[in-house]
Amino acid sequence: MERTRVADIVPGTKVKISGFVENFRNKRTMAFIVVRDITGKIQVTVVKEEHPGMLADIDRITLDSVITVEGTAVANDYVKLGGIEIIPETLKIESVADALPIKEDSAIDSRLDYRWIDLRTEKNTLIFRLQTEMTAALRDWLLERNFLEFHSPKIIGAASESGSEVFRLDYFDGNAYLAQSPQFYKQMAMAAGFERVFECAPVFRAEKSYTRKHATEFTGFDLEFSYIDSFRDVMKLEEEMLTYMIGRVAEKFGDDIVRLYGEEYRVTVPEKPFPVMTVAEIYEEEEKRYGYTVPESEKGDLTTDAEHLTYRLAKELFGSEFMFVTDFASDKRPFYHMRDERGVPQGFDLIWRGTEITSGSQREHRYDVLCRNAAEKGLAEDVKFYTEFFRYGCPPHGGFGLGIDRLTMLFLGISIKEAEFIFRGPDRLTP
Amino acid sequence: MERTRVADIVPGTKVKISGFVENFRNKRTMAFIVVRDITGKIQVTVVKEEHPGMLADIDRITLDSVITVEGTAVANDYVKLGGIEIIPETLKIESVADALPIKEDSAIDSRLDYRWIDLRTEKNTLIFRLQTEMTAALRDWLLERNFLEFHSPKIIGAASESGSEVFRLDYFDGNAYLAQSPQFYKQMAMAAGFERVFECAPVFRAEKSYTRKHATEFTGFDLEFSYIDSFRDVMKLEEEMLTYMIGRVAEKFGDDIVRLYGEEYRVTVPEKPFPVMTVAEIYEEEEKRYGYTVPESEKGDLTTDAEHLTYRLAKELFGSEFMFVTDFASDKRPFYHMRDERGVPQGFDLIWRGTEITSGSQREHRYDVLCRNAAEKGLAEDVKFYTEFFRYGCPPHGGFGLGIDRLTMLFLGISIKEAEFIFRGPDRLTP
Repeated sequence: MERTRVADIVPGTKVKISGFVENFRNKRTMAFIVVRDITGKIQVTVVKEEHPGMLADIDRITLDSVITVEGTAVANDYVKLGGIEIIPETLKIESVADALPIKEDSAIDSRLDYRWIDLRTEKNTLIFRLQTEMTAALRDWLLERNFLEFHSPKIIGAASESGSEVFRLDYFDGNAYLAQSPQFYKQMAMAAGFERVFECAPVFRAEKSYTRKHATEFTGFDLEFSYIDSFRDVMKLEEEMLTYMIGRVAEKFGDDIVRLYGEEYRVTVPEKPFPVMTVAEIYEEEEKRYGYTVPESEKGDLTTDAEHLTYRLAKELFGSEFMFVTDFASDKRPFYHMRDERGVPQGFDLIWRGTEITSGSQREHRYDVLCRNAAEKGLAEDVKFYTEFFRYGCPPHGGFGLGIDRLTMLFLGISIKEAEFIFRGPDRLTP
Repeated sequence: MERTRVADIVPGTKVKISGFVENFRNKRTMAFIVVRDITGKIQVTVVKEEHPGMLADIDRITLDSVITVEGTAVANDYVKLGGIEIIPETLKIESVADALPIKEDSAIDSRLDYRWIDLRTEKNTLIFRLQTEMTAALRDWLLERNFLEFHSPKIIGAASESGSEVFRLDYFDGNAYLAQSPQFYKQMAMAAGFERVFECAPVFRAEKSYTRKHATEFTGFDLEFSYIDSFRDVMKLEEEMLTYMIGRVAEKFGDDIVRLYGEEYRVTVPEKPFPVMTVAEIYEEEEKRYGYTVPESEKGDLTTDAEHLTYRLAKELFGSEFMFVTDFASDKRPFYHMRDERGVPQGFDLIWRGTEITSGSQREHRYDVLCRNAAEKGLAEDVKFYTEFFRYGCPPHGGFGLGIDRLTMLFLGISIKEAEFIFRGPDRLTP
């Protein structure tokens, strides 16, 4: 007999259900077993004298044991869980659980130690149902627009860009490094004439940071596309893609998010275009409105405090949760971002709910200009393998990256430790 | 003006096209420039006396330079490429290419050195268009069936399963390792009650192998699902998923594959169910039919030669390119594969076109049995973090893994060096 998921049970039919034991009352004449699967919960009601053969197994049941029950689904108004109960014919114990070592409100580190138990709640399962839908929506939108999916290498020969934050590994008799981003390879795909690519894959950062948004490994969602006229084409694509994605999440999980995470995290499908301000404009407004003054030395970039304040600013000025930020100082942006004739980097950050979710730009595709920019930052030798990509013809192009875990965090107001299936930090390598 | 892709050009309209210079003839009164984008090729015809301002730029053009042309698409029966040419109004050089360092028939190692140039041909681009469609089809099929996508950690604390083939890395003041497979984590997701999960992500193998199918890094496609009755449920799911995927590839790229890779690689949508034979039955038939004798010591597993011969065998016996193989010897399979009461591993390999593409099984989910099996292999301590997943309730489950690059290889009859966007081997860490 095929298994029926709890949400699909129809009263009056024979069913086979399987799941974890959520609740268990073993009385003298009756046993009540609440079974939980990924779709819901249902009560199994056992009248003991009718099932003498089941009693030995019933006595073995513990919380979170896994059982399979075949029987009849019966409408019963006295049953709280959806007014349906299962009258069993057979009961099989698939797995007996030891007493659970954590509770829902245990400290986060204990919960991470026993992550597989921590994830069993509806609330925590929703994190990954949402993440699945979010990623599927991003991909669907891109595939519809002729993007190719590609897989760039994570083991790289040289510590590119900024060597200090890169993990080193033994590679046979030599060394290798873990890629911090697919940046150079997605640009290589542009030089290969792929025109539009995306990748969803792990990225690695050897940063000893202990904030609620830093991890040493996370899932990046990167894209790059050719034949743009300006970085504003990149912003336009991003806002269209995100709006589509948020619409899908809202449709599928909007109600669940409010029910389980609170009204504060209600999903709002944004209006387009997203607001755009320069760094200087943001500082001016934040000073005027909130009395925030930025130290002179930080003016070329957004401080973390200023970033957080943009949530309020974007709401007040534009009724938006999003804010594109442009016109960063040249020395705050990587050498491969294109500069205009005034030297202004042709890129942007996108801030959602007060946290940066993207850096994007038009890239410098002109070999001579790129080499000059790299040399100015003292990187000419380090990035030679990369500048070579531009020597044999390369279209103008741009792109950006998103963090899947960071987006998940912001959807639900949780920390990165909860948004990752398995969190990795400087002190956390298990399970 | 919006760019038009070559395949979308309609004669009689104004267009803007961009692409690489595929061919270039610069005559005294005329210039003919063939422009290539990812969808096709088109000729730009320049009557020089009509465009005096264009001449300096035309003289800068080299093969594989990138240009943008605005003009009118005109039907012209004398033009070979689709009977259309572009009469330009403006011409812009986006990027001038140096003389190319490789040709289409250069040695594979030179081609890999300049992979971004190597990938510019229609034939090589097809590899990644196919891979994109294949992966999208697998995902669509699974998402439709309530699978969740998850991302397991690639940095792990202990060298699990078989330490010898694992890359070690510096992790702050200690050591860590790169995951060889998401096996343990996808099973952890089962213990978490996720019921059905898949992951598409890099896997790492520190093997010093130099065959046409080995790489130190490749893209794995793994899945796992709960509440199965037997490993045959896993085989059934796999054959249904693959049949769907192959159907989509056939529909989208069937003709292109034959045109560019030859009749031998025509995509055949398989019939279900796929044939199934035991290891012993295969050896018996291969001896009878092809005179192949297996050394006594190898009888519990399929030798590489026997594996190759199954292509012929599956064709002759069943008219199929596929063959499921079951009943491997217990000592040839990992400790986490479930055994039946006779000790036979409840798993299978799937062979396509004579190459193994999958190992799958029902997993041992019973904590006590699993611990005993691990102890028998002397692994009890090494895998303790993993056996813990089964102590607090776990559904019966099974799954398998596929290699995206290996499937790509087999579709097109190419080597893994060509099937990966960037190949990684013991001697290859660039570009």
